[in-house]
This record gives sequence, structure tokens and C-alpha cells, in this order.
Amino acid sequence: MATDFFTDFPTIAYAGPDSDDELAYRFYDKDRVVLGKRMEDHLRFAICFWHSFCWPGSDVFGGGTFGRPWHQGANDSAAAASKREAAFDFFTKLDVPYYCFHDVDVMADADNVADHRRFMAEAIDHLEQLQAGSGRKLLWGTANLFSHPRFAAGAATSPDPEVYAFAAMQVRDAIEATHRLGGENYVLWGGREGYETLLNTDMKRELDNFGRFLSLVVEHKHKIGFKGTILIEPKPHEPTKHQYDFDTATVYGFLKRYGLENEVKVNIEANHATLSGHSFEHEIATAAAFGIFGSIDANRGDPQNGWDTDQFPNSVEELTLAMLEILRAGGFTTGGFNFDAKVRRQSMDPVDLFHGHVGGIDTVAKGLLNAAAIIEDGRLDGFRSERYAGWTSGIGSQISGLDLAGIADLAIDRGVAPKPRSGRQERLENLINRFI
Amino acid sequence: MATDFFTDFPTIAYAGPDSDDELAYRFYDKDRVVLGKRMEDHLRFAICFWHSFCWPGSDVFGGGTFGRPWHQGANDSAAAASKREAAFDFFTKLDVPYYCFHDVDVMADADNVADHRRFMAEAIDHLEQLQAGSGRKLLWGTANLFSHPRFAAGAATSPDPEVYAFAAMQVRDAIEATHRLGGENYVLWGGREGYETLLNTDMKRELDNFGRFLSLVVEHKHKIGFKGTILIEPKPHEPTKHQYDFDTATVYGFLKRYGLENEVKVNIEANHATLSGHSFEHEIATAAAFGIFGSIDANRGDPQNGWDTDQFPNSVEELTLAMLEILRAGGFTTGGFNFDAKVRRQSMDPVDLFHGHVGGIDTVAKGLLNAAAIIEDGRLDGFRSERYAGWTSGIGSQISGLDLAGIADLAIDRGVAPKPRSGRQERLENLINRFI
Amino acid sequence: MATDFFTDFPTIAYAGPDSDDELAYRFYDKDRVVLGKRMEDHLRFAICFWHSFCWPGSDVFGGGTFGRPWHQGANDSAAAASKREAAFDFFTKLDVPYYCFHDVDVMADADNVADHRRFMAEAIDHLEQLQAGSGRKLLWGTANLFSHPRFAAGAATSPDPEVYAFAAMQVRDAIEATHRLGGENYVLWGGREGYETLLNTDMKRELDNFGRFLSLVVEHKHKIGFKGTILIEPKPHEPTKHQYDFDTATVYGFLKRYGLENEVKVNIEANHATLSGHSFEHEIATAAAFGIFGSIDANRGDPQNGWDTDQFPNSVEELTLAMLEILRAGGFTTGGFNFDAKVRRQSMDPVDLFHGHVGGIDTVAKGLLNAAAIIEDGRLDGFRSERYAGWTSGIGSQISGLDLAGIADLAIDRGVAPKPRSGRQERLENLINRFI
Amino acid sequence: MATDFFTDFPTIAYAGPDSDDELAYRFYDKDRVVLGKRMEDHLRFAICFWHSFCWPGSDVFGGGTFGRPWHQGANDSAAAASKREAAFDFFTKLDVPYYCFHDVDVMADADNVADHRRFMAEAIDHLEQLQAGSGRKLLWGTANLFSHPRFAAGAATSPDPEVYAFAAMQVRDAIEATHRLGGENYVLWGGREGYETLLNTDMKRELDNFGRFLSLVVEHKHKIGFKGTILIEPKPHEPTKHQYDFDTATVYGFLKRYGLENEVKVNIEANHATLSGHSFEHEIATAAAFGIFGSIDANRGDPQNGWDTDQFPNSVEELTLAMLEILRAGGFTTGGFNFDAKVRRQSMDPVDLFHGHVGGIDTVAKGLLNAAAIIEDGRLDGFRSERYAGWTSGIGSQISGLDLAGIADLAIDRGVAPKPRSGRQERLENLINRFI
Repeated sequence: MATDFFTDFPTIAYAGPDSDDELAYRFYDKDRVVLGKRMEDHLRFAICFWHSFCWPGSDVFGGGTFGRPWHQGANDSAAAASKREAAFDFFTKLDVPYYCFHDVDVMADADNVADHRRFMAEAIDHLEQLQAGSGRKLLWGTANLFSHPRFAAGAATSPDPEVYAFAAMQVRDAIEATHRLGGENYVLWGGREGYETLLNTDMKRELDNFGRFLSLVVEHKHKIGFKGTILIEPKPHEPTKHQYDFDTATVYGFLKRYGLENEVKVNIEANHATLSGHSFEHEIATAAAFGIFGSIDANRGDPQNGWDTDQFPNSVEELTLAMLEILRAGGFTTGGFNFDAKVRRQSMDPVDLFHGHVGGIDTVAKGLLNAAAIIEDGRLDGFRSERYAGWTSGIGSQISGLDLAGIADLAIDRGVAPKPRSGRQERLENLINRFI
Repeated sequence: MATDFFTDFPTIAYAGPDSDDELAYRFYDKDRVVLGKRMEDHLRFAICFWHSFCWPGSDVFGGGTFGRPWHQGANDSAAAASKREAAFDFFTKLDVPYYCFHDVDVMADADNVADHRRFMAEAIDHLEQLQAGSGRKLLWGTANLFSHPRFAAGAATSPDPEVYAFAAMQVRDAIEATHRLGGENYVLWGGREGYETLLNTDMKRELDNFGRFLSLVVEHKHKIGFKGTILIEPKPHEPTKHQYDFDTATVYGFLKRYGLENEVKVNIEANHATLSGHSFEHEIATAAAFGIFGSIDANRGDPQNGWDTDQFPNSVEELTLAMLEILRAGGFTTGGFNFDAKVRRQSMDPVDLFHGHVGGIDTVAKGLLNAAAIIEDGRLDGFRSERYAGWTSGIGSQISGLDLAGIADLAIDRGVAPKPRSGRQERLENLINRFI
Repeated sequence: MATDFFTDFPTIAYAGPDSDDELAYRFYDKDRVVLGKRMEDHLRFAICFWHSFCWPGSDVFGGGTFGRPWHQGANDSAAAASKREAAFDFFTKLDVPYYCFHDVDVMADADNVADHRRFMAEAIDHLEQLQAGSGRKLLWGTANLFSHPRFAAGAATSPDPEVYAFAAMQVRDAIEATHRLGGENYVLWGGREGYETLLNTDMKRELDNFGRFLSLVVEHKHKIGFKGTILIEPKPHEPTKHQYDFDTATVYGFLKRYGLENEVKVNIEANHATLSGHSFEHEIATAAAFGIFGSIDANRGDPQNGWDTDQFPNSVEELTLAMLEILRAGGFTTGGFNFDAKVRRQSMDPVDLFHGHVGGIDTVAKGLLNAAAIIEDGRLDGFRSERYAGWTSGIGSQISGLDLAGIADLAIDRGVAPKPRSGRQERLENLINRFI
Repeated sequence: MATDFFTDFPTIAYAGPDSDDELAYRFYDKDRVVLGKRMEDHLRFAICFWHSFCWPGSDVFGGGTFGRPWHQGANDSAAAASKREAAFDFFTKLDVPYYCFHDVDVMADADNVADHRRFMAEAIDHLEQLQAGSGRKLLWGTANLFSHPRFAAGAATSPDPEVYAFAAMQVRDAIEATHRLGGENYVLWGGREGYETLLNTDMKRELDNFGRFLSLVVEHKHKIGFKGTILIEPKPHEPTKHQYDFDTATVYGFLKRYGLENEVKVNIEANHATLSGHSFEHEIATAAAFGIFGSIDANRGDPQNGWDTDQFPNSVEELTLAMLEILRAGGFTTGGFNFDAKVRRQSMDPVDLFHGHVGGIDTVAKGLLNAAAIIEDGRLDGFRSERYAGWTSGIGSQISGLDLAGIADLAIDRGVAPKPRSGRQERLENLINRFI
């Protein structure tokens, strides 16, 4: 029975930085108060179904290595139930408050609309029981609109309206299930919403279809009284050649175009950030500047490889900078840290799932502690404020009331001859290192 | 005298595809009518001052190799005049109708506001005469807000309001000069409008300052009666670690944020496109979809190198796809093909400037001929229309009147089971190759 | 029956550049003599089993879309036979002289050594009959040492000697099968020969194990009298984080280290070249300079995406440059152009397989025609010879007889003051474009 | 006077991790013994002339921002002397034992052979005095064979033999000066030894010329009795499109080709490593595996930007992994950590030079402490040894005595069915994080 799968493992608890126990938290002390809030409430960790319970350890060049019991035969109702039970046992053992799922992650395989809805309903009933029994909560739900062959050319951007309708059916069921399960957000990742070649693509039509689809989802959310946040997850490409939700700035423009910038926020994934040519913290800072910061998919990429490696975060340096931007943005409201991360294909033992999550959680937790210390120290933000101080007096304050000619004349009248001033980058980098 | 510099070179003329003359056009036949318009009117070629007349052939690891006469001493009024004369001689020899410049490209070096304005005025007077004498026209002007040390931390996004004011002075003069010279566009490239490190950067403030600056420029344009187009030139990075105008989609969001999407368009550079992780044609198609396609900076990057190599375009294949998107977008209005391209540092002879431009012009011209043939053939666009035909009847036409639940119910009632259909990518790629 | 699969398709024949027939060759005219050799003998095209007959159209984010009949159930002996028959029918319809395979591509699935050998033997018997019946030949065979979970940590570089032994078994059988089938080369691609993390890797030991494995293969080749060439296929990474056979220059160093540089050559794949930061033609030129040029895996990558997209070649420009280097290197001996290319996941119809191969073959063929014309023209190679002419007289010829001090003194005595000379890159690029 | 330039700055000393002094070392405690050796002797820090004293703060898009006094006029003998004095004052203030230089970094500008030699001799005399007066030592010298226009097409790989001879003159003088100054290594970085386009390049001839040049340097080293190490510094490209010394594995092949693998080692730069598609620690591990590890150019790149940003190292995580590989390789013999790093263009104040170096030194020092702790802990290397333990008994030990057929038969006889075993990547990453 699947609930036996993790029987031999302990519940993971905080043991302090000096503990030698590899299956304990060294930094994640959920009740510790940091900047006035419990760590658990700051970080709102979630574990995902897809990488940790659905993926068999395969890659493009080779088959699965994991051999989980629920993968031994067809993914029927029994296998799906077994997987759900194992997953909740794992969530509980990790003492992580949240989880996330795609519809197809938690249900038996279905080939048609009727089966899809029947198996989905069955899965949601079970999830509801499992939540109640375990105290675990749903951070977000989503619909998988990319794996089935029907979505090969997109879902909301498919040239085929039947595919669009199928997607609408899945999303309605998934958002309603999320609502029923008390989910705090609903995510859309447009894995196939993009193009393979411009030669056969009507980009404007696809964008308009995509924009309308998103508007309908927002409208439906209000209709059913779902109070959670709708999130879009940016990614530049893979599997498609180009995805329309390339990065946070692109998503912002898309939301503005369809009048949705106050309704939808972004779910930022670290590895998607780096694939799009940005740092993780850049994407967070951009979302914060635009007022659309929502949630995080925690993982990391490989700086030398050009695909989504979805490794567990292990750089405290990277997470310190990311947490700094999150804290500057006011922290999470409905969002949290979901581990959209997978153990390596060679890490096929159940204990590896523990190592991955324990290390990831501690990396994020230490990042939070470091970032909080930087903020409490105040020197970094003090330097930054001071750097822009010229805008609040003298010529700086005059500029806001003038037009281009007025400002130009001001420069001429004063004979301005501004000297560059040091940005002190090296000093600030050293300052950050004091806290890591 | 500088006007002697190109004395020994012929005026470049059309000689046909089979000509062995290396200093003649094989495809650019300016009066040839293509899709109802003269090639010259389609392509609106321009030559730039900076790469071809200002850059001495230096790079980060080495000094200049070109030894142009106007670079022998200080860049004073005489040297600048000499450079302007040589440039116009070159424009005429190439028989290219337009040119482009930054303020500092055409004037003597200045250290303060007063000198800047005096030398700028002197240069504009001369350009006016040279235009009249040669029949050459100004495609666009711009102000260099990135080379002088004062702009090390940005111009419109500088933490120092005096720098912002200096920039306003330069831009007012440059846009008024552009207007006086009959320029058809005014460009802003924010080479330093970005950040080196988030640690010292207030991104929201910088974006807001940048947005206001652009609004002021637009307001000033209307005030002085300039009818040309204001263009932003996207680039992801270099010289800065991150530029705010990362790519076309990012610029679109920025314009929407500051209510400028109907006032400002984009000047797309091929090499900037590829540095941002997109194909050249992608950026054009994106701008067209958003209604902000303006002009082109023609060049190419090196697919293996990660900086702006600004090589002359030489891929007819790439230009065919780019021209196809331009023609689909309706062609240029005020924009054109400006060669933001430089000969290699080892190509130090004047003849190399001819080879670079002749090859670039013919590459673009052949791209136009190919793209026009594809459009006249009709099979490509026919296939595309047919691919989306489902949206105009049956379930496709019903969808537009329904909400999410309505569409989902439609899918359920019909028991839709859409099958993926071939996108025929290989067939379409073969079709394109028939025209190259 | 699988041989019916392609029944409705014609045999592809040469129809000339102006033919409108999409299922005909426009440039590949196998008997046309180019530079003294038939095109078929120049290009030696091969079709691969894996992408075109084994891959179901899946990717990391989604399932198979192709639905080939031999994929409907388990890959047992009957299914494998059916696949082999369909493949040979396709080879014949394309009129391509060669094919390539991995052991597991052509046989039923096996779980243990005994079954592996039994099913392999069965497959080879059948291939022998199919070759005889169709006149198709084997360009190269290889063993798949990367897909099965046992190879997760490498084959010849596995930490587990049992895996090494299993690999030796597979390779012996595969090279002996290749020999028996008259194969002209034997290829090793080390898909898992590399590392995921240095933390658990003994690089020196793995390299030494890999070097010895290759030496044993070479020794065995001689022992069994196989006259074909042993080829290594470089790739920088994917699936592994780092592959030991990173690129051609790395493979050369590896061969030198283990004394194999006269025994082993490289099989260069276009997409692997670009993933390693090189152009396709660079890798060919490098192999030629080191005397290890062997064969080609024809495909292309996507310049914006960072994984192995294995698309069909469609750039005549790229293939012209590649063919130019191949011709400069003297052309193929035992090698050829194997299409290690796959149609897109959305190209799920059998006709798409035809479009992919017909377009790829014509792209390469046109590249050959262009490159031959460049060589016959002589200007390009003439310029190059002339550029280095200084080495054959004067100071150039003196240098070869002097030591460092002698050469330095020569410079001093002559007071050399060399001036840079133009490399004429733009002119040469224009010259190439005349032939495309 | 230039020696006054740093007058107001203190000598930097160790003050401990908790010190708030920004101009003190928190981790670099030169006399602290780590793994049996003083930190100074482990790390052998050097400061470079070029970035810190020659570069004016310019980039491709803008002029210098630094305004150092020795840059105010022409680089004549007085200015060069002033620069040398300031540099030695800085070396002393930082209490760093070593420095590095290119010939042209330390001397007045020269246009011809005679002036070059005269100014070089003048500079070396002065350096000798400065060394004696300050106790600072030379880690390595080198000749700049890339900045002057004469080297536009390469030095040892130039098509022009006069350039080759000029380079020989410079290298002889530079290596003899290095010898006289007690330098411990001599470095060759082939900034222009590569190509811009294959169209005009005879790669084989260039490689052979380059190989012979290096052989002559080695021969000359022995002739003059120089006991230091000859080092090649790999870099993939920039300024050239492709450099022949692409990465460590490529250099190894080059050395083997010309029989120099026992004479020449590599100087690995972090940013060059990442530009070539490798991690910093990969390049060190590769050099160690091949027996050619020499020295380090310490800096870092920007993971999102594709050019050599040469930033100061600030990632303790990266340096811990790098130091781990260095310690595994036995540490430095003649090599050391040279800061081939530059402060940002906006960091124009002298204090920024201090921040950059202090932070860089502490980052490396902390990396050493961490790596030493990992080694003393023993778990990491213990796991690795155990992972390969199968090779020392049973089938593993039998394999070394067998040929391919023997090993294959062994697999068959035993019916081997190896199971993949976890590589425990996540656990090991967590283990490393315990020491950072």
C-alpha cells in the first residue's frame, strides 16, 4: 500500500544549524519569528505533485529510473489513489503546509471528456479527505493543457476551437476544484501557448484568443466567488520554440493589453527566469515594480545548460537576493514557495526526495534569515535611498513641474555639469556577503 | 580635404544579378516596382554616422585600426566638418536616400552645455547645406545619452537629476534639429537606461522617471509640430547588465504603462533581437501584432558570440523572413532600413565600407524580392488562413458569444475529442526555400 | 502490414529546380557529376531509424503524437519486424542509399543479456534480408548505451563495472552486426559519458575507463577484420550536465591522450556543434585540420533554444559553408550525411516524414552545388592563399630555420613595423552570396 | 606625485569575521595555518596592472570615468613611472605578495621596435627597484600581443610573418624580464590567436605556426634558465570570433599535438570558463585530470551577459567548489590567484579599488577555509571513493586484464543485470552547504 512507501522515514523537524542529522532542518524553524512573522507564514512552502510523484525519472534520452509502486501498471483509479496517499504522507513527513497539483497529476488517465470529469471528481473527493486528515492545504491548482497530444498546437492559442473548448472545460473544473479545496491561487502556465514556426502562425489572433481566455477565467473566478489569485507563470520557451508568456515584463504588457493587470499576477520560477536571460531576483523586482508579484516556483537551473533542469535550490546566495526582493515587495499575500523542482534522474531512492526537499527548504529559510538581517541592518536600503536623494530637493524637485523645454532651460541656465558618482557596487556586494 | 576621401570610388549602380562588378548592386534596382511600389520606397535605406564615420576600428581589447583623416587629431570643428563631408560623399556614392546620426556623431567634442549647443548648431547648419546639395534626407536623428561619463548611471534613469536635465537639453536640441532637417523619425536608445546591480537600484522610480521623460518628449514633439514618429530601440543589455527596453514585448508593456502605445513605436535591430533570445522576424511580428512596428536597424549578430557584433546583414534567408513580416505588417510608413552595422576591425580600408554596404543593401533587396514572390504565390498565407478557418464557423464562431462555463458546457455536450493536426512545418520551410 | 504504411507515396525522384512537385527533388540529382563525382557518391545520404521510426512524437512535456502502427502495443518481435519493413520501404521510396541504427532501435525490447542477444540476432538476420532485397546499405551501426536505466550514470564511465561489462557486450554485438551487414563505420556517442555533478565524480578515472573502452573497441575491430571507421560523435551536454566528448577539439585531445588519433575520427552533428558554441563549419574545419574528419549527422538547432532540437537542415547558406569545408577536406571516405533529424511533434502525418527528408536532402544537395561552384570559381581560395603568401618568401621563409632569439633579432635588425592588412571579410561574404 | 594617490588609505589587515571595518579582511588571515600551510602560501594572491591601473573605466559604448592622474596626458615615461609607483603602493596597502603585468601595461607607449625595447628596459629597471623596496614579487609576466593594430589578425597566427617576428621580439623581452624579476610563471593569452571568419583563414597553418611559436618559447625558457612555468590562458572568443585556446580540454589537445603537454600548463580564468560553457570548477578539475593545472585568474562573469565582464569574485559558494578542486589537485606550485578583475565603470573612486580587492580576497579566503573543512570532514571524498569501489574487486578487477570479447563474455556468463544506484546529488549538495 502506497501509504507504506515512506513509513521508514521520520517526520522532518528543526534541529538547528549544528545538527548532524541529514534528515532534519537546520534553518527552517517554522515558529521562529522573523521581522514580526513566523517563518512558516513568511515562506508558505508547498510540494508539487508532478515532479515528485508523477515523473518516473525519464528524460528525452532515456526511460524512468524511479520505479515507484504506483507507476508499475496503468494509471487507473487505484494507482492514482495510491499516489495521492503517498504524496500526502510525504507532505506531512516534511511538515510543509501546502501542496500544488495539475488536474491530470492526481487523477486516472482519461481519453474523453466524460472520463476526464469522472476521474477528476473522484480525485478531488479524495484530496478533500486527505487535506482534512492531514491538515495540509492547497497553495494552488492548475490544469495541464500541454501534455496530451490534443494540445500539440496550444490550448487557448490552438488553431482548433475544439481544443480551446476542451481547455475551457478543464480549466473550469480545475478552478472549481481549487475553490472547493480552499486553494489560495489558481495558476496558468502556457506550456504550448506559443509557436513552433512563425510560418504557420497568426500571432495576433493567438494573442487575442489567449487574452480572451484569460478574461473568461477571471470572470468565472468572480462568478463562483473564488477569492484566490489568478497567476500566470512566465517561461520563454520549451517545449515551444517561443512562449507568449516569455518573462514578467512580457506578461505585464499582455495583462495591460487585455485590461487584466489588476486581476492577474505572476508565479515566478527561478529556472524560467534564467532561461529568459534574467536573474531570479530581477524577475521578482520587476513584478514588484509593476505590482504583479504573486508567488514563486522554487528551483534552479544549470548556468551552463539551456533547458529547464528544475533542480532543487541550493544557493543560499541566490535565495538571499530573491528573499530580499520579496521582503522589499512586502512578502507574500496568497503566494508561497512551491518546489517546482525534481531530484536528478540518478537520485532514484525515496530518501533522495527527502534530501532534495530538506535542502531546498533550508536554502530558502536561510535566505529569509539573511535577507531579514540585511533589512534590519539598514545600510543597504539606506545607501539606495541616499543615492536618489537628489530627486527630493533642488533641481530634482523642480523637474516634476516642468515640461521638456523647461527642464532643458533649467540645465542651460544652471550650466549643469554633472559628475558621475560611484555606485559602490563592490562595497554593496561585500556588505551582502556579511549576511550570507 | 575629406571630400577627397572617396574620390576614387564609383557611384554604385544596379548592374544585375550576373554582373561581376563587386562595386555594383546585383539586386537593388531602386526604380524596380515590387508589389506596386519602387524598391527605394519599400526599403528606404539609410547609412549611419556612428559606425561608418565615427568608430575608429577599436574594440575592448585593442585600439583603432582605420586611420581615417578626420581621426588624426582632436575632434574639433574642422575635423567634424571634414567627417560630415566625407559621409555625404559616401551616401551619394552609394545612392542611398537617407542617413541617421546621434548629436555627438556630427559635432565637435564639447565639455559643457554652452559648447554642446554651439557645436551642435554649427553641425546642423552644415548638415542642412549638405542635404540640399546632395538630395540626401534624414531618416532619423537621436541624442547620444550613453557615451559621456556623466551618463554612467543612466540619463533619464540616472539617480542624479542634473543628468536628467542635461539629457533633456540634448534631446530637445536633437529633436528640434531632426525636425528642422526634415527627419522622418526620432529615436531613443536607452543604452544606459537600466542597471548594473539591483543592490543600488530603485527600479520603480527609474521606470517612472523614464516613462515621464518619454511622455515629455512626445509632448514636445507635438508642441513643435514635428510629424515624425518617436521610436524606442529595444536591447536587452550591453553596456548595462540589464536594459529596461529589453525587447519589443517589454517596450510594449512600458508604453502601455505610461499611456504611450499610440505615440511611440519600435526601431528593431536584428542583433538586439538575437541578444534578447528572439529571432529578428519574431521581433518584427511582435511589433506588428501590437501595432508598434516602426523602423529597422539592419545588421546581424554572431550566433556563437554573446555581444553586439553589429555585422552587415549577409543572410538572404534571414532577410527574406524579416521582409515577409514587414510586408505582412504593411511595410514602412516613416521607417526604413538603417545600417546600424560596422565593417570588421580588420576591414580598415575605405573599399571595405563599400563592400559592407553594397552587400548589406543587396541582401535586404533580395530579401524583399523573395518575400514579395512568396506573397504573390499565396500558398503560405493560404495555408495559414486555412489553419485557423475553424474559428469562423461551427464551434469556433459560437465561442465568441459564450463565457467560460458556456464554452465548457459546449465541449461536454458535444463530447469534443479534438485530434492534433499537422502544422506542416517542414513543408512550409521547403516552400520558403523555393523562393530564396 | 507495415509495408503498407507508405504505399500511397511515390518514389522520390529528381524533377529539377522549377518543378512544383513537393515530393520530388529539385537539386538532388544522384547521377549528376559534380567536381568529377556523382552527387550520390559525394553525399552518401543515410536515414536513421531512431528519429524517423522509433520516436513517437513525445517531448519532455508531452506524450507521443505520431501513432505509428508499430507503436500501438508492446515493442515485441512482430512490432520490431513491422518497423524494420516500413523503414526499408521508406529508404527505398526516398532513393537514399544508406541507413543507420542503434541496436535497440531495430529489435524487440529486452530486459536481460540473453534476451538482448536473441532479439538482436533476430533483427540482424532480418536487416540482412531487407538490405539484399532493397539494395540499401548500412552507413553505420551503433549501440544505445544511454536509454536504459542501467546507464543512468554512464556506460564506459559508469562507477559500476557491471554496467561497463554490459556495454562491452552490446558494443561487441553491435560492431559485429555492423561488420556482417557491410556497415562502413561504427559510431560511439557517449550520451551518458560525462557527469551530473563533480561532487560525486572521479573525472580522471572515468576518462581513463573511457579511453580504455575505446582502445578495446579499436582492437576488436582489427581482430574481426572490420575495415570501417570508428567514429566518436561530440556533444557538449544533454542529457548529462557535461559530456566528455564536448566538441571536436576536446575529442582530439582525448584521442591523443589514449593514442587513438590515427584510429578514430569524428561524426559531427550540426546541432551538437552549435550547442557547444561553434558553427557547424567550424567543427568540420577543426576536424579536417586535425585529420580526424569522418562523417556528418545532418540536422540543425534553433539559434534561440538551448537544447538539441534536431530539426531537418533547411539553410542552404549553412550547408554551403559546411560543404565547402568538406570539399576542402577532400570529401567523405567512409562517411556520409546521415539525417539525425526529426520532424516536429506537430508534423505527425507520414507525409511530413517525406517533406522533412526531401527538404533536407535538397538543402544539402544545393549546398554541394554551391560549394563546388565556389571552388571552381577559385577566387575565395585564391584570396586565402595570397593572404598567407608572405610565409613562403622573405622573412616568412627565414623564420622556419630560427629559434625565438633569432626571430626576435630579425625583427630588431629589420626594424619591422608591420601594418595591419584588410582581411576583406565583407567582400568575401558577398562573394559567397553570389553562389547561394 | 602618484605615490600620494593612495595615501589616505590604511594598510589592509585581518580583523576577523565580526569586524565592521569595510577596509579590513574578515577571512584572509595570511599566517593562519590551513591544512598544514599558511593561507598566504595557499592562495598566493596577485594584483594585476591592466584592469586596476591601465584601464580608464571605458567600455565599447562610452569613455573612461576614472580620471587617474597618470591618465591625464600622454602615456610617456613619467606617466608610466607614476603608474608603477601607485600600483606598488596599492600592492603594499593590500598586503598582497604578488603582482602581474603585460609589457605594455608598465611602459610608455612605443611605435617601433627600438622605442619598445628602450621603454620596456626602463620599466623593468624601475619594477626591480620597486620590488626590492616593497617586498612584492612577480607572479607572472606576459606580452600584450593583441591591443596594437598590428595584431589585428593575430600574433603567432598572423598571416603576416613580420607580425610573428614582432611578437617573438616582445615575448623574448617579456620572458627575459620575467626571469630577471624573479617571476614564477610566464603566461600567453592568445587574444587574437583565432579567426574572424573561416572564409579567409587557413586554420591548419595558423595552428602549426602557433604550435611552433609556443615550442620556441619553451625552448628559450630552458636556454635562459627560467625555472618558472609557461602557462596558456584559455578563452573561447572575444575579441575574436573564435580563439584557438577555447578551453582547457582544447588547450590540452593542442599541447599534445605539439608535444608540449609536459612543458606548459593552463592559467584558468573563471569568466573565460563560463564563456566557454563550463563551470569554473570544471575547468580546474579538467586541468587536474590532464596534469596541466597551473594558475588562476580570479574574477567572475555575469550569468546573463555573454561577454567578459571580469567582475571581482563575490560568490563564496563558487569559490568553495573551485578551491575544493584546487586542493584535490594538490594546490598551487608556481601558480596563484591573480585578480584579473576590474571594478565597475561606475566605481570610479580609489576606494572602490579597495572594496573590489578586499571583497575578492575574502571571498577566495573563505572558499579555502570551507574547502579545507570539507576535506577534513572526509564525507564527500569518502562517498566518492565508495562509489567507485566496485572497480577494485570482483568483476571490476577482472576487467583490466580482458579484451572487449573477454569482458563481453564475462557479462554473458554472469548474466549481469546492473541496477542503477543513486548518485545522491541532493545529499552531497546539502553536505557542501553545511560548510559554506
